[in-house]
Amino acid sequence: MQRPYNFSAGPAAIPEEVLQMAAAEMLNWHGSGMSVMEMSHRGKEFISIAEKAEADFRKLLAVPDHFHILFMQGGGLAENAIVPLNLSRGGAVDFVVTGSWSQKSVKEAGKFCDAQTVASDEAQGFTHIPAAAGWKLRDSAQYVHICSNETINGVEFQELPDLATLGSKAPLVIDFSSHVASRPVEWSRVGLAFGGAQKNLGPAGLTLVVVRDDLLDHAMAACPSAFNYRLVADNQSMYNTPPTWGIYMAGLTFDWILRQREGALTGVAALEARNQAKAELLYRAIDGSQLYENRVAHDCRSRMNVPFFLKDESRNQAFLDGAKERGLLQLKGHKSVGGMRASIYNAMPLAGVQTLVDYMQTFEKQA
Amino acid sequence: MQRPYNFSAGPAAIPEEVLQMAAAEMLNWHGSGMSVMEMSHRGKEFISIAEKAEADFRKLLAVPDHFHILFMQGGGLAENAIVPLNLSRGGAVDFVVTGSWSQKSVKEAGKFCDAQTVASDEAQGFTHIPAAAGWKLRDSAQYVHICSNETINGVEFQELPDLATLGSKAPLVIDFSSHVASRPVEWSRVGLAFGGAQKNLGPAGLTLVVVRDDLLDHAMAACPSAFNYRLVADNQSMYNTPPTWGIYMAGLTFDWILRQREGALTGVAALEARNQAKAELLYRAIDGSQLYENRVAHDCRSRMNVPFFLKDESRNQAFLDGAKERGLLQLKGHKSVGGMRASIYNAMPLAGVQTLVDYMQTFEKQA
Repeated sequence: MQRPYNFSAGPAAIPEEVLQMAAAEMLNWHGSGMSVMEMSHRGKEFISIAEKAEADFRKLLAVPDHFHILFMQGGGLAENAIVPLNLSRGGAVDFVVTGSWSQKSVKEAGKFCDAQTVASDEAQGFTHIPAAAGWKLRDSAQYVHICSNETINGVEFQELPDLATLGSKAPLVIDFSSHVASRPVEWSRVGLAFGGAQKNLGPAGLTLVVVRDDLLDHAMAACPSAFNYRLVADNQSMYNTPPTWGIYMAGLTFDWILRQREGALTGVAALEARNQAKAELLYRAIDGSQLYENRVAHDCRSRMNVPFFLKDESRNQAFLDGAKERGLLQLKGHKSVGGMRASIYNAMPLAGVQTLVDYMQTFEKQA
Repeated sequence: MQRPYNFSAGPAAIPEEVLQMAAAEMLNWHGSGMSVMEMSHRGKEFISIAEKAEADFRKLLAVPDHFHILFMQGGGLAENAIVPLNLSRGGAVDFVVTGSWSQKSVKEAGKFCDAQTVASDEAQGFTHIPAAAGWKLRDSAQYVHICSNETINGVEFQELPDLATLGSKAPLVIDFSSHVASRPVEWSRVGLAFGGAQKNLGPAGLTLVVVRDDLLDHAMAACPSAFNYRLVADNQSMYNTPPTWGIYMAGLTFDWILRQREGALTGVAALEARNQAKAELLYRAIDGSQLYENRVAHDCRSRMNVPFFLKDESRNQAFLDGAKERGLLQLKGHKSVGGMRASIYNAMPLAGVQTLVDYMQTFEKQA
């Protein structure tokens, strides 16, 4: 039986193969007699799971050796505090605000450092990314923060800024929660990347932090030990008991990603091609219709999160009801913006987007 | 086929029924077409799971209405910082040190407040609980911290201290990570209780905090929002994306606990009776042998974590190898103390302890 297509913004769809494997191994992982959830995190079984997950993540995103990969807890909202606690030294930090998530980040950082918005698209309703040439970067900034994909507003950096060419020596911090592993990362431009796992990588409760080694040692005295990057790194992400199930599920997902093929492409490159095709199909359908609209500038539309509005809002509930009947789930937009949102992460096949587009066109004609 | 008996100190054994249910529902929870891991935490499906979990936990431990139950992340080590950030106001906090965990707690709290050890059994190797009459409690203390069961040292408070009778008005904070839900809690003596789920309640990555309402509003400015008890409480533990799978698994475990029967007893009372019987069986076998010893004073021995030593340490590896052959897993003691440790949490049946005791006696005779 065909499973429904799940467009949740996160926690989000997981590849069916991954779920099948998790169910099959639930009571007895690889002959150990234990569920993964029942293993000591310091035993050889779980250590092998964690080491493979880390190595596979490094491989699939080509993370250079001078970056540490940390498995942490608390999601993006916790990192909004944990990053400044580790990197700001209580000094200046610059934020580019392109939507709800970067707004939250600058507000939270203000508790720990001199957090300043150096560019914002709020006046245009978060439909553009402010041109980098206009960012008012400070020489004193300890780092510059961007949200490289805004889940709620559907705005994505198609290329990461190169701060060096903007005259800044600060490291770039990216919140890549909602598009991690959907496209390659230009690590030469990045100091630190963080993301909750619950969109593209696995279940909620696991956070990935990829941090350049020279940034590990600047934690403020007020940083809780469990969230001190140096301590987490030196203890192979086991300073405190890690979210073992989340690491296991992410590991199965990493393995799934590495096995993906699209023509001659493999892994993340294959997914990127598939994600481009999915996004083009959906945006084309929206732009070509009289009923639906997406307000984001074409050159910064997200490939992962596609918010759209029915010009006749009185039909919103009918749209959602009809979608659910056809097995198209969780399309309701975020409460702060309304309308609809289709999140089409890695686990969403092209066939799912095609089914949505077919439904949207049928629904439009019913008017 | 009989599953092995898993004596891990945590992450620890989960009732087989709970694992079976989790496997069966993996791809399609209650006809929703989604895995629990794929649900938006703000959708009606997951909210029903979280609400039932909270209500069942309140029921099984008889948590009074003037306490909030919070689902958080980071485990006990994170709470060692989060509790003082929320409750200390940067002032005096008193610690009773009865083993490795309370040692860690007082050390971490010292980063945020005037943390002082007011009683310690370190000189006796953590084999006793210092008599409450001798605790040097300060009038200025914002709270008094104890670890009500020390997982590594195997020391357990058989009764919670009544601070009022000791002349203190401070609330009592208990770290009950490793014996939560194994026995009732005298809530009239408690201000706040916290615990990682990975011993008695479910998978690692979920932390339970039970906090009296009047203690919610004292967070320090440096407390990250994601860990501010007031914000977490006001957002029904969804200020940030919660560890949805952990809450689901804990909910299945709560349901399992409520269904337990031991004669006329049900729920936690039934488990307490079973846990007493298991502990008595094991301690009697240790005390009656020439080979094994447990050094903890009889009146404060843990019912959950039973460390023991072979007087002939050269036989340690042979003991572990033979145990594993018989399906008795994860008996190696914590690296900081050596020897053996049998953690016999709620999910361990009496038959598992009997099998261990039989093996210990057979092994002793082989000398």
